Amino acid sequence: MSCRSGVRGRFLVLFGDSFNAGRVMRQRYYIGDIGDYDGQEVTLEGWLAGRRSSGKILFLQVRDGTGFIQCVVGRGDVDDEIFEELAALPMESSLRVTGHVAVDARAPGGFEVSLVGAQVVSAATLEYPITRKEHGVPFLMDHRHLWIRSSRQFLQLDTPILTPTACEGTTTLFETNYFEESAYLSQSGQLYNEATAMAFGKVYCLSPAFRAEKSKTRRHLIEFWQIEPEIAFADLDDIMDIQEELVAEMVGTVLSERASELGILERDIEALERVKPPFPRITYSEAVELLNKAGHSFEWGGDFGAEDETVLSRQFDRPAMVTRYPRAVKPFYMENDPDDDRVTLSVDMLAPEGYGEIVGGGQRMMDAAQLEERMREDGVPIGDYQWYLDTRRYGAVPHGGFGLGIERVVTWICGLAHIRETIPFPRMLNRMRP
Amino acid sequence: MSCRSGVRGRFLVLFGDSFNAGRVMRQRYYIGDIGDYDGQEVTLEGWLAGRRSSGKILFLQVRDGTGFIQCVVGRGDVDDEIFEELAALPMESSLRVTGHVAVDARAPGGFEVSLVGAQVVSAATLEYPITRKEHGVPFLMDHRHLWIRSSRQFLQLDTPILTPTACEGTTTLFETNYFEESAYLSQSGQLYNEATAMAFGKVYCLSPAFRAEKSKTRRHLIEFWQIEPEIAFADLDDIMDIQEELVAEMVGTVLSERASELGILERDIEALERVKPPFPRITYSEAVELLNKAGHSFEWGGDFGAEDETVLSRQFDRPAMVTRYPRAVKPFYMENDPDDDRVTLSVDMLAPEGYGEIVGGGQRMMDAAQLEERMREDGVPIGDYQWYLDTRRYGAVPHGGFGLGIERVVTWICGLAHIRETIPFPRMLNRMRP
Repeated sequence: MSCRSGVRGRFLVLFGDSFNAGRVMRQRYYIGDIGDYDGQEVTLEGWLAGRRSSGKILFLQVRDGTGFIQCVVGRGDVDDEIFEELAALPMESSLRVTGHVAVDARAPGGFEVSLVGAQVVSAATLEYPITRKEHGVPFLMDHRHLWIRSSRQFLQLDTPILTPTACEGTTTLFETNYFEESAYLSQSGQLYNEATAMAFGKVYCLSPAFRAEKSKTRRHLIEFWQIEPEIAFADLDDIMDIQEELVAEMVGTVLSERASELGILERDIEALERVKPPFPRITYSEAVELLNKAGHSFEWGGDFGAEDETVLSRQFDRPAMVTRYPRAVKPFYMENDPDDDRVTLSVDMLAPEGYGEIVGGGQRMMDAAQLEERMREDGVPIGDYQWYLDTRRYGAVPHGGFGLGIERVVTWICGLAHIRETIPFPRMLNRMRP
Repeated sequence: MSCRSGVRGRFLVLFGDSFNAGRVMRQRYYIGDIGDYDGQEVTLEGWLAGRRSSGKILFLQVRDGTGFIQCVVGRGDVDDEIFEELAALPMESSLRVTGHVAVDARAPGGFEVSLVGAQVVSAATLEYPITRKEHGVPFLMDHRHLWIRSSRQFLQLDTPILTPTACEGTTTLFETNYFEESAYLSQSGQLYNEATAMAFGKVYCLSPAFRAEKSKTRRHLIEFWQIEPEIAFADLDDIMDIQEELVAEMVGTVLSERASELGILERDIEALERVKPPFPRITYSEAVELLNKAGHSFEWGGDFGAEDETVLSRQFDRPAMVTRYPRAVKPFYMENDPDDDRVTLSVDMLAPEGYGEIVGGGQRMMDAAQLEERMREDGVPIGDYQWYLDTRRYGAVPHGGFGLGIERVVTWICGLAHIRETIPFPRMLNRMRP
């Protein structure tokens, strides 16, 4: 799961011309690794955590989740316009800075970056509510989604199960009484992950999720476990790269360390050995065409069901990523595709051999006003989500993530016929015992 | 968490004469390590998984959770009485065997054990319901707590959150509607762990737990995470050894790998450096005496509250283990102390510096009839727990485990004033937001 990578150009050669999507992965720098870049020029992405001014020089404290770094910029080092913007930028705005790394004994972390360029990603739209003054505990707990950005917190990224709101639609919720209020069992930790990603940059949770779906299929559990990474400063391509890396790594590890168990299960090893990047990347529209070409009639606009996914995933010899689903079939938080406003920057990964969806994710909507409008359209109760909108009001950044269903991946890797084999005590429709 | 240990004698020298409990840890052998013992005599503990007979020789397949091994015993190698007992022993009975390990190319695992002695721990009281014949899926899913013992299952030890029954008392349960039936949010994975421990020997779950407690203290979360190990063929002393090892290892790892974070938190490092085995081990009765000597009046028979634990834990400079609580303050599944029927083979670990309980556990009641009687006394609905009683009907073994509260341990290690600091989005009395 490490996003730290050396300089590498990787061209993805995919299946058939129409799926070609050659691209070079960009170099990512993190403050936690700054010692590796002494004397070099780096570009850092993060949030403004502090600022001092000494005449014509600004000292900016920048945080990116892996650490804090002092950035120094003198008037004349950058355009006057950007210098003035930096001098007045509200705390917790998001920004991208480029400069030279140098050892500096006076700097808090032992290194300093002399800026040659800077770009504001999203200026905080309000004064940041948490300041150096003393705040009462109720105030801080109400702003927990922002308070976690302070360095005083211990890094712990569990997301709550009991929540006052729904994440993935309201029809499949388990409800309980939380001291005279209604609470719902979490369907996903994602919304909370978005808040922790703004604090720590790259986060994930590994947690049970609950969906009271009345479907009785080989792929559905009522209670299942998900791993959900969320990454700040990431676009759809980054999300796909990480999905691909994670799934290939999981399969590779099982192949090398659990060969005897795969033998007991009589798993077709060759099918797993093909699970190597690059995975095919196709759009939803291309997938609809593929379905129809395969004689499986499907109309553009609907969501893929288990059968559609089975047909689709049989077209490929390794996991395939389907991108850009229509807005109507994805939740409110998906970012719009700037090239086609009918679709979203979403991506599902389908496991081969007919297994279907194992990962769902995408790029999240970044703009607060647009997100609020989308929520109103979808009938989401805005009042309950003020904390979530705060993640866009204070230093919004392009970000995204995904959820990987543990039991579905195990079903596929083990080549099992039914998901109930993958968890000791499965919870299914009409099955809560033992 | 590995229980594999070389031969080691360890004498515990504790605080003051009354706490002395010198003892030598016994050597444990596991089938998974059998290759290390070629030519040696070993004692294995496990369950009878298969048997063939060839005239005057018995071939026994023994399973202990780490693997399967073939044990060979000829008439005359052991007492006639035990030979006859082995020849007729029902499948899934638990047993202890001693013999010589030797390479044998014909044996399934490449090794074989020639027995010189054997002891039945608990003969299965009924014919084992899962046989070589084909069983229907509903039958197998109803017997999921036994079915997991077959080697075909993938090792996965999550315990369910949604359960039809309560584990730790019914007053603090969250209830929800599970397809027209009542379900409760898990308070502990322990009962399920006991079933998986009979399948895999040593297991643990890491899972959220829920207690609708109306207490508003610095130590209580409504929703918290626990790590819960459960070990087959373990007594109270084994459980304490593992608790001690685990907690010492956790503190040691934080000290060596997170020194800078402890610095940010201004933690007293010396207090943590003292957290080395042996930890003091005192009985509940000794603890009551200590409390009264400290001028904190406490009557024998009650449960320790947060304040009592604070006073107690201040008597020690490292975590202390309090054993043998009265029956009335511990759940129905705790084993009786054979030396004093007023108390149970239970153990809580109290963190020093006033932090109080971080671990609770003990040895579980082994005898099915006694357990059922205890359940009736406590008003536990027997019908819902038939699956749990099955763990005693088919190859009962001495076993035990404990639950370690992640956030409580983090609170203590970080030296925090309140548990709410240790989880990103704490759920407390009157706090479900954000």
